[in-house]
Amino acid sequence: MDRSIRVGLNGYGVIGKRVADAVKAQADMTLVGVSDVSTDWRIRVLDGMRIPLFAGTADAVRALVDAGIETAGGLEDLLGDVDVIVDCTPKHIAAGNVPIYRDRGLKFILQGGEKHAVTGHSFVAEANFETAVGRDATRVVSCNTTATVRTLTALKRAGLLLRARGTLLRRATDPWESHQSGIMNTLVPEAEIPSHQGPDAQTVDPDLDVVTMAVKVPETIAHLHYWAVQMTRAAKKEEVLDALRASSRIVLMKDEYGLEALNTVKELMADSGRSRSDLYEVALWADMLKVQGEELFYAYMVDNQAIVIPETIDAIRAVTGREVSGRRSIDATDAALGIGGGFFAKPHPRTPSAS
Amino acid sequence: MDRSIRVGLNGYGVIGKRVADAVKAQADMTLVGVSDVSTDWRIRVLDGMRIPLFAGTADAVRALVDAGIETAGGLEDLLGDVDVIVDCTPKHIAAGNVPIYRDRGLKFILQGGEKHAVTGHSFVAEANFETAVGRDATRVVSCNTTATVRTLTALKRAGLLLRARGTLLRRATDPWESHQSGIMNTLVPEAEIPSHQGPDAQTVDPDLDVVTMAVKVPETIAHLHYWAVQMTRAAKKEEVLDALRASSRIVLMKDEYGLEALNTVKELMADSGRSRSDLYEVALWADMLKVQGEELFYAYMVDNQAIVIPETIDAIRAVTGREVSGRRSIDATDAALGIGGGFFAKPHPRTPSAS
Amino acid sequence: MDRSIRVGLNGYGVIGKRVADAVKAQADMTLVGVSDVSTDWRIRVLDGMRIPLFAGTADAVRALVDAGIETAGGLEDLLGDVDVIVDCTPKHIAAGNVPIYRDRGLKFILQGGEKHAVTGHSFVAEANFETAVGRDATRVVSCNTTATVRTLTALKRAGLLLRARGTLLRRATDPWESHQSGIMNTLVPEAEIPSHQGPDAQTVDPDLDVVTMAVKVPETIAHLHYWAVQMTRAAKKEEVLDALRASSRIVLMKDEYGLEALNTVKELMADSGRSRSDLYEVALWADMLKVQGEELFYAYMVDNQAIVIPETIDAIRAVTGREVSGRRSIDATDAALGIGGGFFAKPHPRTPSAS
Amino acid sequence: MDRSIRVGLNGYGVIGKRVADAVKAQADMTLVGVSDVSTDWRIRVLDGMRIPLFAGTADAVRALVDAGIETAGGLEDLLGDVDVIVDCTPKHIAAGNVPIYRDRGLKFILQGGEKHAVTGHSFVAEANFETAVGRDATRVVSCNTTATVRTLTALKRAGLLLRARGTLLRRATDPWESHQSGIMNTLVPEAEIPSHQGPDAQTVDPDLDVVTMAVKVPETIAHLHYWAVQMTRAAKKEEVLDALRASSRIVLMKDEYGLEALNTVKELMADSGRSRSDLYEVALWADMLKVQGEELFYAYMVDNQAIVIPETIDAIRAVTGREVSGRRSIDATDAALGIGGGFFAKPHPRTPSAS
Repeated sequence: MDRSIRVGLNGYGVIGKRVADAVKAQADMTLVGVSDVSTDWRIRVLDGMRIPLFAGTADAVRALVDAGIETAGGLEDLLGDVDVIVDCTPKHIAAGNVPIYRDRGLKFILQGGEKHAVTGHSFVAEANFETAVGRDATRVVSCNTTATVRTLTALKRAGLLLRARGTLLRRATDPWESHQSGIMNTLVPEAEIPSHQGPDAQTVDPDLDVVTMAVKVPETIAHLHYWAVQMTRAAKKEEVLDALRASSRIVLMKDEYGLEALNTVKELMADSGRSRSDLYEVALWADMLKVQGEELFYAYMVDNQAIVIPETIDAIRAVTGREVSGRRSIDATDAALGIGGGFFAKPHPRTPSAS
Repeated sequence: MDRSIRVGLNGYGVIGKRVADAVKAQADMTLVGVSDVSTDWRIRVLDGMRIPLFAGTADAVRALVDAGIETAGGLEDLLGDVDVIVDCTPKHIAAGNVPIYRDRGLKFILQGGEKHAVTGHSFVAEANFETAVGRDATRVVSCNTTATVRTLTALKRAGLLLRARGTLLRRATDPWESHQSGIMNTLVPEAEIPSHQGPDAQTVDPDLDVVTMAVKVPETIAHLHYWAVQMTRAAKKEEVLDALRASSRIVLMKDEYGLEALNTVKELMADSGRSRSDLYEVALWADMLKVQGEELFYAYMVDNQAIVIPETIDAIRAVTGREVSGRRSIDATDAALGIGGGFFAKPHPRTPSAS
Repeated sequence: MDRSIRVGLNGYGVIGKRVADAVKAQADMTLVGVSDVSTDWRIRVLDGMRIPLFAGTADAVRALVDAGIETAGGLEDLLGDVDVIVDCTPKHIAAGNVPIYRDRGLKFILQGGEKHAVTGHSFVAEANFETAVGRDATRVVSCNTTATVRTLTALKRAGLLLRARGTLLRRATDPWESHQSGIMNTLVPEAEIPSHQGPDAQTVDPDLDVVTMAVKVPETIAHLHYWAVQMTRAAKKEEVLDALRASSRIVLMKDEYGLEALNTVKELMADSGRSRSDLYEVALWADMLKVQGEELFYAYMVDNQAIVIPETIDAIRAVTGREVSGRRSIDATDAALGIGGGFFAKPHPRTPSAS
Repeated sequence: MDRSIRVGLNGYGVIGKRVADAVKAQADMTLVGVSDVSTDWRIRVLDGMRIPLFAGTADAVRALVDAGIETAGGLEDLLGDVDVIVDCTPKHIAAGNVPIYRDRGLKFILQGGEKHAVTGHSFVAEANFETAVGRDATRVVSCNTTATVRTLTALKRAGLLLRARGTLLRRATDPWESHQSGIMNTLVPEAEIPSHQGPDAQTVDPDLDVVTMAVKVPETIAHLHYWAVQMTRAAKKEEVLDALRASSRIVLMKDEYGLEALNTVKELMADSGRSRSDLYEVALWADMLKVQGEELFYAYMVDNQAIVIPETIDAIRAVTGREVSGRRSIDATDAALGIGGGFFAKPHPRTPSAS
């Protein structure tokens, strides 16, 4: 077997900490360390997790010393010791880091808050893994775009997709920051139609005919997408479900499961022993899905904190060239994270929470 | 001038109390009294409002006496003294009252919680006022259906409507009952697609090609509808806006107003001096509306407590035959309720809150 | 009768617009105009309300012209035409305006966001109206402090108050801004105990022995206070209720009213025809109140948007010297705003919503 | 070493599933199986978890067969194979099961929804472990009462407690059921003062002088308690903190951790790798705690889903007589669940999520 891929992580926030868990769960990867600038509880847990911490900036070095938090060095030290860096810093910060990575000739992966142009490649594993193989960098697209591309790609591969019109209900903020950036007892429509997710999906697959409208809703659990799809032809419902089942990252929910709302699906993730109660899959209500002639209607839930984690793992394998087959990378990632086989499969023995 | 229409009201709840205010604001109507079965604060205000109370049932007679609340008689007494009864009792209760009204040969109006078949006629003023004229009864359709029919009728009259696909975000419960029937930090999709609003719109206008999907959201202010419409042809945005402006009950909001979300629109209603901060109109974001070839996308807000109030007033005129022209009834209702001319028109001197 | 007091208003926000309504409802006051710097819906309604608008700053002059909104002049013009200015600008802005008012020798009233030292006098009508008579300025204390002082003053006057310890649940944000400054599915304790409301109450009455703890809660309707009071002696519950009844601005709620939660009380205000559904009174659950030996426990609701409005009206009469008796001013204000006699009294013929 | 304690679990809901995880994490216990009557997702995960399922009723047998869910038998089969049964069925159901347990001479443990009289003993490990040793049964008190007794016991042991007056903010519903039983944008005071938690604490320790008031708040994460305590004498703040530190199940939070609100503490639990993000400890804000002469004020967070789990484990050891020392049982439980040493200790190698 090859040497383990040495992965560095810049930014230990909502995505970064999940990438850390997931990297540790992969047989072919090693988490070298994490770089951050904070000094609060988020950073203080790293010692207990036995994850080396690197100070992200000169200011952070001083702040961490003052706070009595041990570090293994600075960002430069981390960068010098890894094959690839995953940048999970807040939106638009990563673009500023890119020259540092490029100067070192270091492979890097950005998240969906950055623009496509920064890397010139946008990534969803089932749609375009192969085009990222060996590149210097790619961008894992945002949670909403990832879900959109996963589902539309499944329909497209079955020859069913003509065009898709979606309404995206976006959770207003993440749970950890809901004490300072929430909305209350209201709905906040995005000022522009179409919203940016349609064009963003086209950075992954320019052939998708997709228009989205988006609205912020007062909950913190997950996004919820509603779609009206024009199919290429009339199709049976079972045919559509089969097309969706072809993706290991879409899970179909039956009414008999009693998963009526976002909160119950999230509780199921906790009950299933998933690390941080994370839902990596697009969770689609199968009995609710409706075919009406050439039209198709459905809704699914998107865990905005978790859905891009398996994609990020796959992106690591692609840019490092460790794997050239999307299918094999996806299978490896799925096995390590307990994805696949629906919601009631036996959990894989090597779940991230056991690490 | 004709004798005032003598209106009775059965059920003084979220809709009933607004109908009461609105009837009192009409020059051609008299509110004879209100029938209800409750004994709490909702009923205790009636005395201060100088609205006669009639006990809805024999049990209610005793309960009201025990609570020391004065009544003007029972439901039968009210029915004997009116030209028309508006039934605003809770969902499915009204159907049981219908035989009583029919036995007396009394004209009656039901609300959207009842089935179309109970009256055989479903009502939205701008769509089908004339077909209700002189009937024994009609049903004012629900808030979501009213908004759907208003907007699609406007597009249809301009020759633009081919078919419409909507996603309806429904407020989870009304403010007054939000301490006992809410949802928290979740979204609850309706189990079936299509949701019932599409077929319900067709009870008013069978020619509408409309499909809806619905989801309960954790707020109490209003519903929010998103639509993707296939037009009969490519059209200019201004042409679409003109089609919508033709309805006095659709109000267009510009970005410069700063009305970014449901809560700000509701605050504007309070600031405008509207009774109970009610929004009678469909409030549509004009700058957000997008035309893309033959496709049209837009979103609007629906105040579920208020939108059916002007329709109910018009329905009273229709079934009693007091008015045979929808346009004239609508104008009268609008003037009395301060509807029309956009959000920043001078309020009509005779608003319901002044009664 | 004396000439009407000419009142100017600087800041037409959540408090300012209510002060405007209330001033217009007083027989002895005239609202000369309103000064503000915004150009959005909040300002655009003024024309319909027939309230003259004055541009608050030079920048505002330009912005209002650009927006096509007519003004009657600038702040200086307003100040030159009034007997007293009520400053309702956002927290800490008012302190900067004070020199302008002082230079003109103009009487002024600040709100509770400013420090006591700015005026040297802090005002709650039932506690210290008389000490404000003829002063150049006073500060109407914040909503939480006003409620605290009203209730503790009532207990003190009955000789019952030894010391009071309160837990204050604060609504996280106001409804109109809940789309941008909310909290979601969490509680946010104030970092310091005691919270500032205890010392703030002592700026009105230094003899009060009061300690408060405060926490932000995810709702927008009202504050809720819980108190544990050490009395000077054992007392009967009825004696305590009588002490509270002595204030016209405390209203007692019985269980039979069915007012179980904040939202139902707010709905009652709408049902009662109160302008903006405002609750001016401290609304205290009478059946819940508990006397246990020398200890007293109770809870009440505070409408943070409305409770200081009657105090502000009284403060106008005090500083202008129009009235020297707190009792007479309070009675006049109460009559004009429909306060007094409990929740189910007949509304006063001259309510602000009728203006 | 002794034979492992064979534990059965009746009711696999919000508490039951956590008890299952925790029993599995104990070196001296074996989870024999779980009895329940549901057929939805909550039960369908058991197979993946390798936890035997027993049908709770005859109806459940049929429903489970119809749903294609395998069982290992009925409740009777489970009861016949265990040393002790933990009843976590919904409130007031357990009381009906007690005769079945007693008939078999089976040791049992109830949860706080049941009345004290059913078992005659109410349990909080640090307060009265020893009095439960060898009993036939005990009742682990509710989450609010557990937190109250833990903290007041700590103060009492330090000789500081005279009397305590608390305001309890109760999360309105649990996350998994928040789609059907929530409250929205309101606060719901409990109708009676004192609320039941004070007397309930006295079932554990009759000497506690404690009065509580309670209010339902619109969030699902945790309860929050505010206390005003009269101490026996003036004390230094550090002395109070030392008293609280003596309990391994109270954790002190410093401001520098940045744990400002309920949601951040919950996120920390996820970040710490805690199963289901559970907080077993009372989490108390140390810098916020205030001593003022003989008075003490403080606030802490109570994870209502998790706090009784370690107590339940200790109760198993007590009633089975496996352990006669509370200290030793508590230490064993804490080690297995990763409790102790504050929030940033290294996690114990044997956490429940690894099972």
